[in-house]
Amino acid sequence: MLNSVTDAFRADLKARLPAAAFRDLTPNYLEEPRGRYAGGDGFLIAPGSTQEVAAVVSACASAGVGIIPYGGGTGLVGGQIAEDGPVPVILSLERMTAIREVWPDENVMVAEAGAILSSVQDAADAVNRLFPLSLASEGSARIGGNLATNAGGVNVLRYGNARDLCLGVEAVLPDGSILRGLSRLKKNNTGYDMRHLLVGAEGSLGIITAASLRLFPKPQAEGAALMVVRDPEAALSLLALAGDLLGSQVSAFELMHRQGLDFLAEVGPEVRAPFEAPPEWMVLVDLGCFAGVDPAEALEQLFAEAAERDLVSDGVIAQSEQQRRDFWVIRESIPEANRRIGSVSSHDISVPVGRIPDFIARGGQALAQVGDFRINCFGHVGDGNLHYNVFPQPGKTRADHEHQRGAVKRVVHDLVAEMDGSISAEHGIGRLKVYDLNRYGDPAKLAAMRAIKAALDPKGIMNPGAVVG
Amino acid sequence: MLNSVTDAFRADLKARLPAAAFRDLTPNYLEEPRGRYAGGDGFLIAPGSTQEVAAVVSACASAGVGIIPYGGGTGLVGGQIAEDGPVPVILSLERMTAIREVWPDENVMVAEAGAILSSVQDAADAVNRLFPLSLASEGSARIGGNLATNAGGVNVLRYGNARDLCLGVEAVLPDGSILRGLSRLKKNNTGYDMRHLLVGAEGSLGIITAASLRLFPKPQAEGAALMVVRDPEAALSLLALAGDLLGSQVSAFELMHRQGLDFLAEVGPEVRAPFEAPPEWMVLVDLGCFAGVDPAEALEQLFAEAAERDLVSDGVIAQSEQQRRDFWVIRESIPEANRRIGSVSSHDISVPVGRIPDFIARGGQALAQVGDFRINCFGHVGDGNLHYNVFPQPGKTRADHEHQRGAVKRVVHDLVAEMDGSISAEHGIGRLKVYDLNRYGDPAKLAAMRAIKAALDPKGIMNPGAVVG
Repeated sequence: MLNSVTDAFRADLKARLPAAAFRDLTPNYLEEPRGRYAGGDGFLIAPGSTQEVAAVVSACASAGVGIIPYGGGTGLVGGQIAEDGPVPVILSLERMTAIREVWPDENVMVAEAGAILSSVQDAADAVNRLFPLSLASEGSARIGGNLATNAGGVNVLRYGNARDLCLGVEAVLPDGSILRGLSRLKKNNTGYDMRHLLVGAEGSLGIITAASLRLFPKPQAEGAALMVVRDPEAALSLLALAGDLLGSQVSAFELMHRQGLDFLAEVGPEVRAPFEAPPEWMVLVDLGCFAGVDPAEALEQLFAEAAERDLVSDGVIAQSEQQRRDFWVIRESIPEANRRIGSVSSHDISVPVGRIPDFIARGGQALAQVGDFRINCFGHVGDGNLHYNVFPQPGKTRADHEHQRGAVKRVVHDLVAEMDGSISAEHGIGRLKVYDLNRYGDPAKLAAMRAIKAALDPKGIMNPGAVVG
Repeated sequence: MLNSVTDAFRADLKARLPAAAFRDLTPNYLEEPRGRYAGGDGFLIAPGSTQEVAAVVSACASAGVGIIPYGGGTGLVGGQIAEDGPVPVILSLERMTAIREVWPDENVMVAEAGAILSSVQDAADAVNRLFPLSLASEGSARIGGNLATNAGGVNVLRYGNARDLCLGVEAVLPDGSILRGLSRLKKNNTGYDMRHLLVGAEGSLGIITAASLRLFPKPQAEGAALMVVRDPEAALSLLALAGDLLGSQVSAFELMHRQGLDFLAEVGPEVRAPFEAPPEWMVLVDLGCFAGVDPAEALEQLFAEAAERDLVSDGVIAQSEQQRRDFWVIRESIPEANRRIGSVSSHDISVPVGRIPDFIARGGQALAQVGDFRINCFGHVGDGNLHYNVFPQPGKTRADHEHQRGAVKRVVHDLVAEMDGSISAEHGIGRLKVYDLNRYGDPAKLAAMRAIKAALDPKGIMNPGAVVG
């Protein structure tokens, strides 16, 4: 069992760390970002250096005090929210925001864990490079949290998840030792890959304090098209065709159902309708091209070949960067329309790409057994990652379906599991999905996770209650 | 301490597994592929299924018998060579060679661990897809071994190392349990990433029995050029320029020093000389392009812009696939010429890409203090991965420098460590580099590795003596 922070513990750390490391515990450190629930209490410390993080962790290890690592606070599964119970240290990385160094010719940058994601993007941009991780909360999420949760986003299709953008990490391990792994190397086969163990561990095995990040050349020309597809299966064939023709120049491939457009018409935000009648299914194809390729021409060729195969029936190719942005505004307004409608239940799931059509068909059928819902299904279809959100019919509210929420989740997750999918594609396990992980996870994997957790964190001080429960 | 295989142990397993799983232990299972040394004894078992692998591992766990996982036997650091000591089981994956399933539209394949790398490539090719892992021993190396050692090769610049080509693994863990992780998912954030822990662990944490592998669209047109660069620094600027212009269409970027061409002239194999006088430094740039890009035109544009910046002084652009292949023959003949000359010491090292010029300069100076050598330095410069090989002067042999080999290795590895490089870029630790890993490795990483090994393999039966010693 862990111990609560005591007055003596506070005094001891205050004597050892600069005053700047201590700040008042305002409610935002304890609240889930959508305001759904809040944690108990905590002793907030914001160290200014890796050495100071190590000093805090060592003190907690000695005293048996739990630590909640805290990045931008944008996580959606409660990984950063202290539960009731022994009062922990809330260790915020907010003062470690430096971009330590950038090597543009090497396509590498070293950033501290507290750097805001958008500032990491900006630092890359300043040397004519791209850091491609991009997601809705990039203005407040911190790169350490993005890595700890292996964040995804819209560019995974082309550039991979957060872990794929990380060459190495510096981290403080549960015994207070500092792992010095800020490798800039593309090839390094010297023992177990601690980077990939810490990335995605959600702070339960150590605290990432800095990371070396991969940068990329910026595409020289970008373009986008909206294409009306026959059905989700045609969308997948179109995606494969786009890969055959254009390879990795396909930056994003987003599927949208008419339900999302209907929500936009119903509650806003107002967007420019690209087609006269809202299509049942459409995709947004985004390209980033290099020397010699004109994106609009490439998209025209793609559309022509897709039309020949009867995959698409209508399409608009952006004729300007403004029009390309307008297309993205539609895609990015759908979550806001969803919020205004108010979902009964939302799911961050993935299935093997080829099973998406079957999942959509069977999901609708199974949910009809539970109740009368509207389903808005959209997302990063190239990654097999769907935002599969269930809504009340017009005139009903989220509250009317309160009693069905558990059943809805269960139906969706059971189907995902049956199709070898994931119950958490992007957001992680945190504290909200520990039960689900235990229910759906592979038993050998769960046993290995527990053994690794016990080996590296024998007192269980690192983000107690998260991931491994 | 581990126990030797006993007659009772043999009889017990023979009663439980089909006769086909047992074969005579021929010397090749015990010999280092270059014939440099050989191991002791072993009980060779070649299971036919994952269940049979699990049965063998369970029996070994009960009896405290060590297991040497055996793939294609091509490893260069002794990871597959049993040492003298308690007689282990040599567990060969040679009978598990199935390509279990291929999903061309998803760009995913599931292959068993014993599949030969070239047969994995062929299975991808048969559905018009590319499995890009490519290395000298691809005709005999097995994919399980490639993953266990996180193999590299010539296409890492574009497609990543073996781990980056793996979506998930099925593996037998040291307690005999089966990890069922053959995910086809591009996004899956549900707990610690066991795939990345097992990949690169060289069989010391479990035996990979199958893997889901990433496939890629095949480039529609390929091209190559040889360009004479001013010096290694100019080569790096050329690489950055190539990325700016052509993005990820650059498939390979290989640096070659005149020494390699001189060796080819001295001892063969005979190759077509691309330039009248052998240049001091040249690079082979290889492109794989998609719709609308002509590789030869793209290479001409690259050369013109590079010439304007004074990076290149001469160049030849392949005008045919045959000429492109001729360029690659030069690059691929250098290792054979090296073998014919006979190195004093060879090093599989990497440094941060930007430090390559400095490394080459300082390495030459430092080795001149040890003795009078010829250095052939070439390799995957885009990955920071150099084959840095030290040779006798004409008239001398490897044997003449026997007494200096230790000092040569030490000088090279010390410099690599000082430059934050890796003493094993591609080949792994195996048994040969355990001492070096302990000398140069980060102490916190080494401690974490030992803790993980003890947690997952408390009896130490998995590839005993490898990686963690």
